[in-house]
Amino acid sequence: MTVYDAPLKDMRFVLHEVLQIANYSNLPGFSDASEDLVDAILEEGAKLASNVLHPINQSGDQQGCTRQDDGAVTTPDGFKDAYHRFCEGGWQGLSFDPEYGGQGLPYILAVAVNEMISGANMAFGMYPGLARGAADAIYVHGTDEQKSTYLPKMISGEWGGTMNLTESHCGTDLGLLRAKAVPQDDGSYRITGSKIFISAGEHDLTENIIHLVLARIEGGPEGVKGISLFIVPKFHINEDGSNGARNGVMCGAIEEKMGIHANSTCVMNYDDAQGYLLGEPHKGLRAMFTMMNEARIGVALQGMAISEVAYQNGAAYAKDRLQGRSLTGVKNPDGAADPIIVHPDVRRMLMDHRAFTEGARAWMYWTALYADLHHKSGDEAERQKADDYLGLMTPILKAYLTDKGYWHATNAQQVLGGHGYITEWGMEQFVRDARITMIYEGANGIQALDLVGRKLMKDGGRALQTFIKELDDFIADNQGNEDMQPYLDGVTTAKGHLGEATMWLSANAMANFDNAGAGSMDFLHLFALTSLSYSWAQMAKTALEKQAAGSSDEFYKNKLITGRYFLERLLPDTASHLAKLKSGAEAVMALPAEAF
Amino acid sequence: MTVYDAPLKDMRFVLHEVLQIANYSNLPGFSDASEDLVDAILEEGAKLASNVLHPINQSGDQQGCTRQDDGAVTTPDGFKDAYHRFCEGGWQGLSFDPEYGGQGLPYILAVAVNEMISGANMAFGMYPGLARGAADAIYVHGTDEQKSTYLPKMISGEWGGTMNLTESHCGTDLGLLRAKAVPQDDGSYRITGSKIFISAGEHDLTENIIHLVLARIEGGPEGVKGISLFIVPKFHINEDGSNGARNGVMCGAIEEKMGIHANSTCVMNYDDAQGYLLGEPHKGLRAMFTMMNEARIGVALQGMAISEVAYQNGAAYAKDRLQGRSLTGVKNPDGAADPIIVHPDVRRMLMDHRAFTEGARAWMYWTALYADLHHKSGDEAERQKADDYLGLMTPILKAYLTDKGYWHATNAQQVLGGHGYITEWGMEQFVRDARITMIYEGANGIQALDLVGRKLMKDGGRALQTFIKELDDFIADNQGNEDMQPYLDGVTTAKGHLGEATMWLSANAMANFDNAGAGSMDFLHLFALTSLSYSWAQMAKTALEKQAAGSSDEFYKNKLITGRYFLERLLPDTASHLAKLKSGAEAVMALPAEAF
Repeated sequence: MTVYDAPLKDMRFVLHEVLQIANYSNLPGFSDASEDLVDAILEEGAKLASNVLHPINQSGDQQGCTRQDDGAVTTPDGFKDAYHRFCEGGWQGLSFDPEYGGQGLPYILAVAVNEMISGANMAFGMYPGLARGAADAIYVHGTDEQKSTYLPKMISGEWGGTMNLTESHCGTDLGLLRAKAVPQDDGSYRITGSKIFISAGEHDLTENIIHLVLARIEGGPEGVKGISLFIVPKFHINEDGSNGARNGVMCGAIEEKMGIHANSTCVMNYDDAQGYLLGEPHKGLRAMFTMMNEARIGVALQGMAISEVAYQNGAAYAKDRLQGRSLTGVKNPDGAADPIIVHPDVRRMLMDHRAFTEGARAWMYWTALYADLHHKSGDEAERQKADDYLGLMTPILKAYLTDKGYWHATNAQQVLGGHGYITEWGMEQFVRDARITMIYEGANGIQALDLVGRKLMKDGGRALQTFIKELDDFIADNQGNEDMQPYLDGVTTAKGHLGEATMWLSANAMANFDNAGAGSMDFLHLFALTSLSYSWAQMAKTALEKQAAGSSDEFYKNKLITGRYFLERLLPDTASHLAKLKSGAEAVMALPAEAF
Repeated sequence: MTVYDAPLKDMRFVLHEVLQIANYSNLPGFSDASEDLVDAILEEGAKLASNVLHPINQSGDQQGCTRQDDGAVTTPDGFKDAYHRFCEGGWQGLSFDPEYGGQGLPYILAVAVNEMISGANMAFGMYPGLARGAADAIYVHGTDEQKSTYLPKMISGEWGGTMNLTESHCGTDLGLLRAKAVPQDDGSYRITGSKIFISAGEHDLTENIIHLVLARIEGGPEGVKGISLFIVPKFHINEDGSNGARNGVMCGAIEEKMGIHANSTCVMNYDDAQGYLLGEPHKGLRAMFTMMNEARIGVALQGMAISEVAYQNGAAYAKDRLQGRSLTGVKNPDGAADPIIVHPDVRRMLMDHRAFTEGARAWMYWTALYADLHHKSGDEAERQKADDYLGLMTPILKAYLTDKGYWHATNAQQVLGGHGYITEWGMEQFVRDARITMIYEGANGIQALDLVGRKLMKDGGRALQTFIKELDDFIADNQGNEDMQPYLDGVTTAKGHLGEATMWLSANAMANFDNAGAGSMDFLHLFALTSLSYSWAQMAKTALEKQAAGSSDEFYKNKLITGRYFLERLLPDTASHLAKLKSGAEAVMALPAEAF
């Protein structure tokens, strides 16, 4: 009963008008991405999302995946057909290197398409998403032979892919892992061990699945420094590229879980499975991180995308459901009651959504543009800046967009009252699906620790300094523009709180690093709000320019209303995050463990 | 795999030491409730909760309720036996009038017991909870004959009870309801209509179910002023009190929903069912509100109780799970890693829980004591004050404790990482179960509207003024106590923000009532934090007194640490709630409806 309509107008606004991607035509791939082509791709993606993927979102949740006695896994009805159409459209290779069958288009465009796929059917999107992540790792770390063996079929969608990190006793702390790899005379390895929580671990969508598996080479060093990454295909691959015999890897069970039922979350058992080293021995964790950073951006996108689709369905209900009368006089005199969108508290929930989701979209796409610059810019300094920004923003995006994505899915469910709790209406699925995004690819607490423990002070804090300078420049450039003043004030206040928080951490973390840990999540949320204040300022500037140039498009007017709402209703939280952070670790850590 | 351990020590602390219920022995029922008896009851309740109710919480969720073809509903395995033991223990009548078989003990004690029942098995607790609510309505509004007919068996637990308000097109706005009642010559009515979302609507736990049903007497006025309340027993009742023939009411379907699967949420179809007017004709809504206010307190309790049980299981995992090393040096040198409770951000989540849950318990029990005073005090002024407080606090408790209960259930799930998402671990059930508490018995937005639109300004704002004076007196009484100063400062700041918010509403709601609606939820949360600051101050005072009297009990030390955490980490949000509220309705309401 839910619907998904890709927010194309907003996407185009961010891509063409705010970020002006046409200015980057000097970059490989961007020259092909004319505004018309981008729009055509977005429109095709929107059709796929609304007409093919979303209609099987609820049924997929209800049916789930089924493991057969032989370990085979059946996806829900319609998934095979939808996947076939996804592959036919060439979506898997949209931004991948043409040498391996990709279309080489900008990553930022792939991000926009992925937003639509995740919003329409998150569980579906994870099958190609995981495969793309595995392909990225092979692309960066594989030998030429590995690349030519695996990538073309992974990019066409004929083969799937997974990442296998977690074991039952270790997830965050991979140094504890037990899966082992025994070297063979032919240069391959025999992998043995059991992995859990493997998304898309087994399914019937592809002819083969290329598992990337973390294991310890027998006799290798203890801890994270002895972990290597292996390619373990489900079926051996013959010389001619066809599937050979089955490898020693099997789905042992499908986990029963809260949501994303249509994605098979598997226990994967490796029993003397033949694997091939990917990258250098004992440096598997680093190679895996190649996948994980992109994967974290992908998860952030899921958080935002679920917020968008939940908003759409909450808003539709609010306009349709007649209940009570407006506090300021009857608005729908011909009806038995007014639509509930007249009620300010219902509005508040919907406006919270818009202020978050539209801001998050602009911030996310802005970051994705830096991913393109990082990979493609010919300018060393620009590449470095892009790399800095990506490293800095990835944990913040991942944690904030998923924390808030979940929260907003909950709010959208609230708009429906009792109906929101009923399965048939589909809103509770958004909440259940969104919930995993706060956990996987590094729980959000780990993202906060990554931010304060690693990213913030890396290279002497260069990334943060560059970002703050960008904000300062923006403020200076727009000084005197009266309409921009509230936005500049917003950025200034948030930036001030962020600066104060950073100074506090600098001054107090050395003496007791728990001070950084105890404030890490507040710091992350404070940082996110600062980034959003900048994204909103950028969008407001664009909207004001369009209006000044004579546009009477309601879109710009509404954008500025939503921007004002952001300043008034979301941004004030920077102060309380700062206050909490500055209270330090003492009360957090004072209780003895046994008191809990 | 989850556990529930009733927080007896904290309950006793609040009942005996903070609220000192022994001081109320002049009230009926309290004289029987000696400290020993209270403790014995709490201990028995704790056993029931941990040993009988909690073990069937997860299995009940997984099995759910089953509707047979004839409309009968089967509860999950073990529920009948557990209900039998519940009745045997006399729990249903704990605080009910002895004239009808109750034990007449204080309501505050029933609240403590209900906290345990809801924490152990919320879905179970709803069966007797709804029956108790129906019994309360009959007790207040019924004729002597109705009371003697229904109450003894409802209080013994032999018969169940429900409340039937919602229809598919109306929940909040009951003026739209369509169920009709046709007067019969014998003084009874024939009820026809369909009700949805009826908790415990049909089940196999009791011999009969006494439905309370809102319907419009044929020819009665339109809107809420034409609604009457009827008693509709599932089985007709013979002269001798035994069950007669089946009445015309049937469960048409069980709703498939997000959680509380072990409670049957029914579509109830009334087809010329014989019903008996309860209270006056056309005044059914007022009679129903008797049930709803108690029910709202009960739902608030569910929110807090789920937070408590989720905390317990999150904390147990955090002490057990080895992953990573402390930021400040190895804490568990003999293990492969440290337990994750060493990590400040894990602590933060657990301390958030404690600061919320312990504060909420004190505030809830404090309010429950006013419910006793309201019903039982011999002093008119005291009864009025109690009534004022109950009216004021009910919507705040309902919305805040359920918003935060859900949020904390989510946080506890987060502590488990990936395992939190897996059904087997039981944490995701807490989240799914807690979710309904924000919706039913009046969605939280309705509570906020009730607060700013009705309760705040009722009787010239008397309730708020009394509460503020109580805070002022407390501050004055404790002035000069250095250890209390941080708590007094906390109350002072929160009270100041609350006062400013109230003034802003007074000044701006008249011109545009949307200003009140748009700020209603922030006002409610600000009020809740102010109330919690007072509860924490009361608890701190007690703990400090115990320490000054020579107690070295760790409990008091830990209470003060948690209190400090509350001041540092939860209370700062009052400022941002105030800032958001003062931004008014303009940006909230500015978008045209079609822009959503």
